[in-house]
Amino acid sequence: MAAPVKVYGPPLSTAVSRVLACLLEKDVEFQLVPVNMANGEHKKPEYLKIQPFGQVPAFQDESIAIFESRAICRYICEKHADKGNKNLYSTNPLVKASIEQWLEAEGQTYNPPSSALVFQLAFAPRMNIKQDEESIKLNDQKLSKVLDIYDQRLESSRFLAGDEFTLADLSHLPNTHYLVTVGNRGEAFSSRKNVDRWWNEISSRDSWKKVVEMQKSK
Amino acid sequence: MAAPVKVYGPPLSTAVSRVLACLLEKDVEFQLVPVNMANGEHKKPEYLKIQPFGQVPAFQDESIAIFESRAICRYICEKHADKGNKNLYSTNPLVKASIEQWLEAEGQTYNPPSSALVFQLAFAPRMNIKQDEESIKLNDQKLSKVLDIYDQRLESSRFLAGDEFTLADLSHLPNTHYLVTVGNRGEAFSSRKNVDRWWNEISSRDSWKKVVEMQKSK
Repeated sequence: MAAPVKVYGPPLSTAVSRVLACLLEKDVEFQLVPVNMANGEHKKPEYLKIQPFGQVPAFQDESIAIFESRAICRYICEKHADKGNKNLYSTNPLVKASIEQWLEAEGQTYNPPSSALVFQLAFAPRMNIKQDEESIKLNDQKLSKVLDIYDQRLESSRFLAGDEFTLADLSHLPNTHYLVTVGNRGEAFSSRKNVDRWWNEISSRDSWKKVVEMQKSK
Repeated sequence: MAAPVKVYGPPLSTAVSRVLACLLEKDVEFQLVPVNMANGEHKKPEYLKIQPFGQVPAFQDESIAIFESRAICRYICEKHADKGNKNLYSTNPLVKASIEQWLEAEGQTYNPPSSALVFQLAFAPRMNIKQDEESIKLNDQKLSKVLDIYDQRLESSRFLAGDEFTLADLSHLPNTHYLVTVGNRGEAFSSRKNVDRWWNEISSRDSWKKVVEMQKSK
């Protein structure tokens, strides 16, 4: 039997939790390797060998080390195409194109304002960093526009890429979880009918509930 | 014979030119469909049907419409795996993981500072928008840190993902071209030995030279 894959970094990190949710959906055994970020372990030479940008997560499988959470997720899905949730990253070219389109929309359009808000609302207070009110205002506005477009899309489609829960939806879980919990931004989601239905459905998945438990126990 | 694929948007757009470079590398016939952005054509209902965020490019093939330049590139490469440059997006899982890792690094780490600089240095003056000196300074610093890491990577690897020119390298062409030409940021690249070699090699490809010609004629 193959050794479990290794995920480096704390589950509280949004990018780490994206990878964990994917591993749980795909039913792939993993080992979480702590990285003491408070001590700057992610900037030390040993860690930089597997993640040259000094960020989390890093990921190791038998023959390969990979960084960038969305790249790690794609690798997991392609390697374990027949395991766990087979719809997560379809092998049908047209379905896959739709997944890639919405996964890129998450990375390029949803993530910038939402990760800025997560930093300001959830992490800055914990790190005793003064919140930047101007950034909060600007990114609330940007997020609102993105959610209007999502609400239209989710009017005609159960999930972002189509009828099934995929990597495109999954990739939204980490930031959105912080926004609706500590970020106090629940209304931005609940006030939009289709976004509300979508968020309730994707955040209720067993995989994501397990990630949230892992975040609490750390 | 299949009809040419359609690319909506001006070649001067960085995201449009990313798709054009990919189509030329893969030797796929295309038709460029103008979108009059000065007249707000990209915000009109007809266009929003294929690109709900009102951005360029949009892309149409026989059976599908896709947006997001990097998703379009992946689709082109997968559909035409046996055409043109076969190394662009390998079907070998380990090589592909490396391509995805560096393609995500481009999208998540290289693109934010470089596209902010392209806007400030190349587009703001054309649009009679006052340049934001603070943003330029901050993003020059961020880009510099990213290029230090790229220089290390390119010390031991001819291209970002390995021995071959891939989608990961290609995806850097549009922003970098503006930075070293109108952006006057050539020194950030030429002063780093390995980045310099890499940039000279990837920007000399016939595919990219053709895109630059298309940009001039528009």
